[in-house]
Amino acid sequence: MPLRFLTAGESHGPALTAILDGMPAGLPLTPEIINTELSRRQQGAGSGGRMKIEKDAAQILSGVMAGKTTGAPIALQVINADHVKWKDKPIPAFTIPRPGHADLTGAVKYGYDDLRPSLERASARETTSRVAVGAICKHFLAQFGIRVGGYVRSIGEIDADLAEIPLAERPALAETNDVRCPDPVAAAKMQERIKQIMQERDTLGGILEITATGLPVGLGSFAQWDTRLEARLGAAILSVQAMKGVEFGDAFENARLPGTRAHDAIHLDGKRLTRPTDRSGGLEGGVTNGEALIIRAAMKPIATTLVPQRSVDLATGLEVDTKYERSDFCPVPRAVPILEAMTAFILADALLAKLGGDSLAEMLPRFATLCQPRLSDLHIIGGEHIFWD
Amino acid sequence: MPLRFLTAGESHGPALTAILDGMPAGLPLTPEIINTELSRRQQGAGSGGRMKIEKDAAQILSGVMAGKTTGAPIALQVINADHVKWKDKPIPAFTIPRPGHADLTGAVKYGYDDLRPSLERASARETTSRVAVGAICKHFLAQFGIRVGGYVRSIGEIDADLAEIPLAERPALAETNDVRCPDPVAAAKMQERIKQIMQERDTLGGILEITATGLPVGLGSFAQWDTRLEARLGAAILSVQAMKGVEFGDAFENARLPGTRAHDAIHLDGKRLTRPTDRSGGLEGGVTNGEALIIRAAMKPIATTLVPQRSVDLATGLEVDTKYERSDFCPVPRAVPILEAMTAFILADALLAKLGGDSLAEMLPRFATLCQPRLSDLHIIGGEHIFWD
Amino acid sequence: MPLRFLTAGESHGPALTAILDGMPAGLPLTPEIINTELSRRQQGAGSGGRMKIEKDAAQILSGVMAGKTTGAPIALQVINADHVKWKDKPIPAFTIPRPGHADLTGAVKYGYDDLRPSLERASARETTSRVAVGAICKHFLAQFGIRVGGYVRSIGEIDADLAEIPLAERPALAETNDVRCPDPVAAAKMQERIKQIMQERDTLGGILEITATGLPVGLGSFAQWDTRLEARLGAAILSVQAMKGVEFGDAFENARLPGTRAHDAIHLDGKRLTRPTDRSGGLEGGVTNGEALIIRAAMKPIATTLVPQRSVDLATGLEVDTKYERSDFCPVPRAVPILEAMTAFILADALLAKLGGDSLAEMLPRFATLCQPRLSDLHIIGGEHIFWD
Amino acid sequence: MPLRFLTAGESHGPALTAILDGMPAGLPLTPEIINTELSRRQQGAGSGGRMKIEKDAAQILSGVMAGKTTGAPIALQVINADHVKWKDKPIPAFTIPRPGHADLTGAVKYGYDDLRPSLERASARETTSRVAVGAICKHFLAQFGIRVGGYVRSIGEIDADLAEIPLAERPALAETNDVRCPDPVAAAKMQERIKQIMQERDTLGGILEITATGLPVGLGSFAQWDTRLEARLGAAILSVQAMKGVEFGDAFENARLPGTRAHDAIHLDGKRLTRPTDRSGGLEGGVTNGEALIIRAAMKPIATTLVPQRSVDLATGLEVDTKYERSDFCPVPRAVPILEAMTAFILADALLAKLGGDSLAEMLPRFATLCQPRLSDLHIIGGEHIFWD
Repeated sequence: MPLRFLTAGESHGPALTAILDGMPAGLPLTPEIINTELSRRQQGAGSGGRMKIEKDAAQILSGVMAGKTTGAPIALQVINADHVKWKDKPIPAFTIPRPGHADLTGAVKYGYDDLRPSLERASARETTSRVAVGAICKHFLAQFGIRVGGYVRSIGEIDADLAEIPLAERPALAETNDVRCPDPVAAAKMQERIKQIMQERDTLGGILEITATGLPVGLGSFAQWDTRLEARLGAAILSVQAMKGVEFGDAFENARLPGTRAHDAIHLDGKRLTRPTDRSGGLEGGVTNGEALIIRAAMKPIATTLVPQRSVDLATGLEVDTKYERSDFCPVPRAVPILEAMTAFILADALLAKLGGDSLAEMLPRFATLCQPRLSDLHIIGGEHIFWD
Repeated sequence: MPLRFLTAGESHGPALTAILDGMPAGLPLTPEIINTELSRRQQGAGSGGRMKIEKDAAQILSGVMAGKTTGAPIALQVINADHVKWKDKPIPAFTIPRPGHADLTGAVKYGYDDLRPSLERASARETTSRVAVGAICKHFLAQFGIRVGGYVRSIGEIDADLAEIPLAERPALAETNDVRCPDPVAAAKMQERIKQIMQERDTLGGILEITATGLPVGLGSFAQWDTRLEARLGAAILSVQAMKGVEFGDAFENARLPGTRAHDAIHLDGKRLTRPTDRSGGLEGGVTNGEALIIRAAMKPIATTLVPQRSVDLATGLEVDTKYERSDFCPVPRAVPILEAMTAFILADALLAKLGGDSLAEMLPRFATLCQPRLSDLHIIGGEHIFWD
Repeated sequence: MPLRFLTAGESHGPALTAILDGMPAGLPLTPEIINTELSRRQQGAGSGGRMKIEKDAAQILSGVMAGKTTGAPIALQVINADHVKWKDKPIPAFTIPRPGHADLTGAVKYGYDDLRPSLERASARETTSRVAVGAICKHFLAQFGIRVGGYVRSIGEIDADLAEIPLAERPALAETNDVRCPDPVAAAKMQERIKQIMQERDTLGGILEITATGLPVGLGSFAQWDTRLEARLGAAILSVQAMKGVEFGDAFENARLPGTRAHDAIHLDGKRLTRPTDRSGGLEGGVTNGEALIIRAAMKPIATTLVPQRSVDLATGLEVDTKYERSDFCPVPRAVPILEAMTAFILADALLAKLGGDSLAEMLPRFATLCQPRLSDLHIIGGEHIFWD
Repeated sequence: MPLRFLTAGESHGPALTAILDGMPAGLPLTPEIINTELSRRQQGAGSGGRMKIEKDAAQILSGVMAGKTTGAPIALQVINADHVKWKDKPIPAFTIPRPGHADLTGAVKYGYDDLRPSLERASARETTSRVAVGAICKHFLAQFGIRVGGYVRSIGEIDADLAEIPLAERPALAETNDVRCPDPVAAAKMQERIKQIMQERDTLGGILEITATGLPVGLGSFAQWDTRLEARLGAAILSVQAMKGVEFGDAFENARLPGTRAHDAIHLDGKRLTRPTDRSGGLEGGVTNGEALIIRAAMKPIATTLVPQRSVDLATGLEVDTKYERSDFCPVPRAVPILEAMTAFILADALLAKLGGDSLAEMLPRFATLCQPRLSDLHIIGGEHIFWD
């Protein structure tokens, strides 16, 4: 069965809940493994006030016995500390939809008589559950030496210069500053730019990169449209609030180059096939090619700005300015663990399809025999075939 | 039940097959409706030789009786005219993987002893089936006044200037030239550039745009990660061969702007809510907002170049040059109907979820009552609510 | 999107969790509506000790604001009161698998080193979550006048005589005694038989019937194998612990009759088509026919008997007797609300597919126009058609 | 990815089409393997006239190259020889719905103006595609020594006596007569009874049994309701036309027995755990237990009888007798390969989940290490665990 999860919970409701189904048995798991990622999600320059209110901690309510997963579904719960202030209390109706949010689309879709239910579920608070689920997936992948990491490539118009920083080192370097940028010079500029935008009462978006190393060749498939890994990973990234673009490798730049400069030659290093470049972002034909997976995501600047935007008060029918709801000024650094989580979920599912089985003990030896493209492991031979007879 | 389809067929096998399941009853359908789209897929500057060999025509094998869909699954078949030349004949093994293709990843994944099975299924020939399926979906959407169209925005480094061309006119204008670009000046340059790249024995990629107009508010949902329309549409686009990037509206550009310049203000035009801009690409919170859907896709230059690339002959273990397989020089114009097809499939499914029902006759009156955001149709009121008690 | 749910939780873990995704907005919902069903699940002759320990109450953690569903996923939590006794305490390994349980199959599948993880998840305690989810589905169906009910037809070798009791009255009559049998004479015998089996330190199974009335014609489909309602409902019933058989109407009996005595003639009552019998159980061609749905389920006697059964101690490798784990003597009466819940879930999903939409307000008028087979609503005409041209 | 398939095609349309997606690479496959099963489906006492018209033969249109599956989707096509008589010809409207068929439910659901579209898709002719798909699944399972077989247990009121015939021998014995019954005495009576019912212009149903041997322990799961194998197999059986009941082992009989007589004791045979009985039908806790899978299905007598039944002519609004459409008198023997096919599909999918991988070569060694419950392979130990801390 495929790996699957559902999340539930409102931004100011009593709790956020997630159920992850299909994780194999035998994976050592503690709340700390999850909470480390939840904590990363709460830290970053440009945060709003809420991060001081909530100190997210996940409770594992099922699926783990004696410190190990059992193969049963894993229920995760994060209590919303803020909820007590919202409980049992009359709350003024939210009647002015903010451009760029789900306020209006949700109200039309579901027939609400107040915009707040849109906000409550569409809010990025929901990504807490995803990070919790993804933390388990990352931890699972790590058992096989597969590492999922991420970092910030640009914030607003400030670009990092990553040319000299090896891909594998970037995620760790990114964790050394609060904008999660591996380039320290750009990081300082980004921090400055965020301070400035806060003074301007505006917001900033940016570009993030997610990488995965240690992947075997052969995850994903070109058999059907919905089995290609670009499709599945792209959906995962674009499902995250405020993400409106995604590319694998330098896709938009490659679209401007001739074919002879846009692909990755195949070389021989002893008996191992190697690729001197990774322009494809680790995927050829919808399938992992053994190189690093490189995903780039475009995050829009958050829609809630202290400088008001034009809207309409739906209760009065008058054109008015939007009212501010507490929000981040630049959520880009905090989005890194969210995108890592979604990437890890898809990769864990693809790895499960490749390995099969119900426990880590069953899967580890299978993984050991997965072949990276070495000549001796391939069985490609010359001669002739009759394909259709 | 959701709309779903499977395709099957190899590039040089006897036939391409598709089954579309879940299309409602009562939709008038003829092969011509499908063949018009298949023909569009076969026309475009920069095509390789195959387009002269195949004149694709779909046969409807089921699901249509007396000229109308019955609600039963629709089987579509396109015969591969080229197959006769491949049948019953020994074919030399394909042993040199081409960078950028599924040649190597497929062989490692499936354990082939010849690279050809990878090529045969991973080939963009498969998109013929998708265009056939998508033609039905487009035709279905058209019953509700929803129009899906597309065009080319750039080929290689040549950009169209579309600023002055209204979105709604672009698809029709694009059909007037063989690069499918609405800007005639850029179109001429693109044609020239394609001729040049053919002489250089190289290939070109580009940027495409797909639009949909007439969409009601409220398709898609922010309830779960996999119900958001950016995720679902993004997957559909990225599932197409050679597509490596996707964005909604100006996502990558918006990521560089402050929040006050990246969203779409809400205005009042009489009693109707309007949006003077469409930076969000028609989606807010994963849900259609009634504005035009705008999707941009980055297509890499095709991997098969007449100028050889470096690779390894897996039969001999020697580094060699790639050998040429018949292919396009610039498939970007021909990709327009493919992306339209995938977009139409997702939108048709989202519309079916909104309308429910089993026949067009059942759905049309339901569509008529779907509200676009007019003040009088919204029931947002002031006052206070107790949300959690 | 289809209705879907996941459950999580172990029998003695901290809590049972469920997430129901896809329920439309605008349904009034309180914990009481759910708790009424949870309470039914806890009452019945032949219960074991646990029912005295747990007084199940569901907490709604999301998806409901101001007393109504919002369309967002609904998270439900039931605390296991028994958990405190199991927490932080060394528990002797469970090493003797009980025949008929998942003890052994789970341990082999997941590679456990103790049988307890099998018991904890496979236990019928998990059905608490399903009853909670199903309570919402039943309540949703009730908005359309669709009633799902159930009762006990036999316990062990004691059969009810229901010939004279109209189908629609049976569920209410069943609630008047603790064996949930509408026939009071049989009920008394069943109660006696259960007392006797408890003295014999053995267990009893039985036959249950689930009915649904008020269904429109046209739910389900014969388009594909997995859209037929017999398949979907059958899976739902057989997914419940200890259910090993299912039939629609008198299926096993009908299999012995000639065709002329096994079907339901079509009559005319004024302008309405009527069926004097309901041998098909309300489904023809995988689709509801407007008659009452009648599902019969065979529940095996519970595997845990006070009289020991033969097994093997896996820790010692010796043939031994099973050890008793607290359990019911006759869970048949308590299974009624569980089967109702699963039936309601499938019917709610099928109704959602027929009606579409995102809110009750959107769906109710659509339901009103669904036609029951009246001559005037059908458009069947004489003459000739050319179906394939 | 899970194994999946779609079928398409009408009873008298040009062709039946199926696409099977997810079959691993490297399986030797020829049309003969499929046609053997198609032929079995066409043979049996009590057939109607159509079997003489159609001699079904499947064409493999994709997914197989050089005689082996490639992992690509497999398209299968069976031409309807009867179609030429139906093509381009005005066909009188079908206006009198037959009780027990989809005639009426389909017309109401889809809004047809003629009942024929219901018949055309709901017809058991569609099972041809399923048998073709299932033939591949059976053949795949056979590579692992898993054998799926079936036979007839009763026709009408005639029961076979199978007590003395070992389960493993029944399928082969069944193939020796045209009622597919392993008991030759009963077979003769069944043949006689079928002749008689034809003279009576009536029809007969019956009870079928499907078995699978060689299954490893651990397929299926109790993790979620929809992963339990009783649910999945039950759905597969009940999805077949005219199947209205299903049980695993002696479920309906077991429901009348005390628990001490309804389960399968666990014994030790050397170091191997054995089960002297198989009352559970090979499934405990929704998971295979290594014993033979035993599924019993109740097939109703076919609804189309030469003796007319009461119905209403929807074109005239008058109560009339049904008109005869060509049909079987007793389709029970012919249903054996259909149920085998559906069973094989579910088991193949469950085996794929257990083994993972993309080719037979990758899966076979994994299968070899799957443990049947031998003491030495289990790691159940005594002592104590702290499960929740």
